[in-house]
Amino acid sequence: MKSYRKELWFQVPSRRAFINITPHVEECLRESGIKEGLCLVNAMHITASVFINDDEPGLHQDYDQWLEELAPHEPIERYRHNRTGEDNGDAHLKRQIMGREVVVAVTDGRLDFGPWEQIFYGEFDGRRKKRVLVKIIGE
Amino acid sequence: MKSYRKELWFQVPSRRAFINITPHVEECLRESGIKEGLCLVNAMHITASVFINDDEPGLHQDYDQWLEELAPHEPIERYRHNRTGEDNGDAHLKRQIMGREVVVAVTDGRLDFGPWEQIFYGEFDGRRKKRVLVKIIGE
Amino acid sequence: MKSYRKELWFQVPSRRAFINITPHVEECLRESGIKEGLCLVNAMHITASVFINDDEPGLHQDYDQWLEELAPHEPIERYRHNRTGEDNGDAHLKRQIMGREVVVAVTDGRLDFGPWEQIFYGEFDGRRKKRVLVKIIGE
Repeated sequence: MKSYRKELWFQVPSRRAFINITPHVEECLRESGIKEGLCLVNAMHITASVFINDDEPGLHQDYDQWLEELAPHEPIERYRHNRTGEDNGDAHLKRQIMGREVVVAVTDGRLDFGPWEQIFYGEFDGRRKKRVLVKIIGE
Repeated sequence: MKSYRKELWFQVPSRRAFINITPHVEECLRESGIKEGLCLVNAMHITASVFINDDEPGLHQDYDQWLEELAPHEPIERYRHNRTGEDNGDAHLKRQIMGREVVVAVTDGRLDFGPWEQIFYGEFDGRRKKRVLVKIIGE
Repeated sequence: MKSYRKELWFQVPSRRAFINITPHVEECLRESGIKEGLCLVNAMHITASVFINDDEPGLHQDYDQWLEELAPHEPIERYRHNRTGEDNGDAHLKRQIMGREVVVAVTDGRLDFGPWEQIFYGEFDGRRKKRVLVKIIGE
């Protein structure tokens, strides 16, 4: 069994953003030399997500608006978590909707995707350096 | 390490439905001959889910109604994504609540489940052929 | 390839609670002797979650209140599932928001975590014995 590990770093200039990280993960897979196995991609921070969906800007605006309806950023006092001095209570909730991680099948040395699947980093509390972990196991 | 891959195809006649795919996944596991490992089951389309819950029709009606409250299908114009000519903006949101994939432990050649766990395909934009991927790795 | 399996049992005295199970999972990993691989941790019951977030009591209160807004426990009659004699319809919905499982990378014999990642058992229908499955594969 082979295993491969890499951290991807991101610094998003805004509070929230969605970034297509599929090319980075594909590069990791090439580097790993793994042909058959599983590829885990997870946010290493608890106010961010990794998820798979469509690379369509209108959809990303829909997600952003919808998540703001489900877990608004303001008023800050809405969240007990923010009494710790943080202002990111909403980000911890948004991340649960969008998920922490994806597991992708590796077949014939490729990410085994359907026609429109792309991997996104979802940032909900940006403006600082944060990491995504790529771990691949297989042969 | 062994690996196994199969696509399951579904054509749901309605826009939305929940289908118990556990027997299909169990058949895949038998075909694979894998006794110890991990089984990934994921929707290959981004307007569908794979999730684990109870095979109880009342619950499925509850899910359907709840998801319609959280991300209504209409009005179509509610979603920027639908300006692309699609009418499935809601389906991309519903799928995030229910999830893309499940990872199930394989122990002694069986799906290692609690008493009521069953695997479902959740369709949110049906009436066409769509796929689920089953990937099993182990020994 | 090595594989390891253990069930963790919990009996939560209240209907709902969040329990940090990271030390239990770390102990499983030590017992397994696995240095490189993947660790799956999943609820074996369909009214409970396993998820990764912050060990901060205010945040857990925020989660509890938010989930009650998204899927209220009462009125019981709100859920068709409860016509079966259950009163846990809401728990099946809450669990979908928070998720069934996490997959954690294992690197150098440790859970490969970012700075604040902790694993939680989320109980939404407690007051009885319920289980979490830990399955680790690797070398």
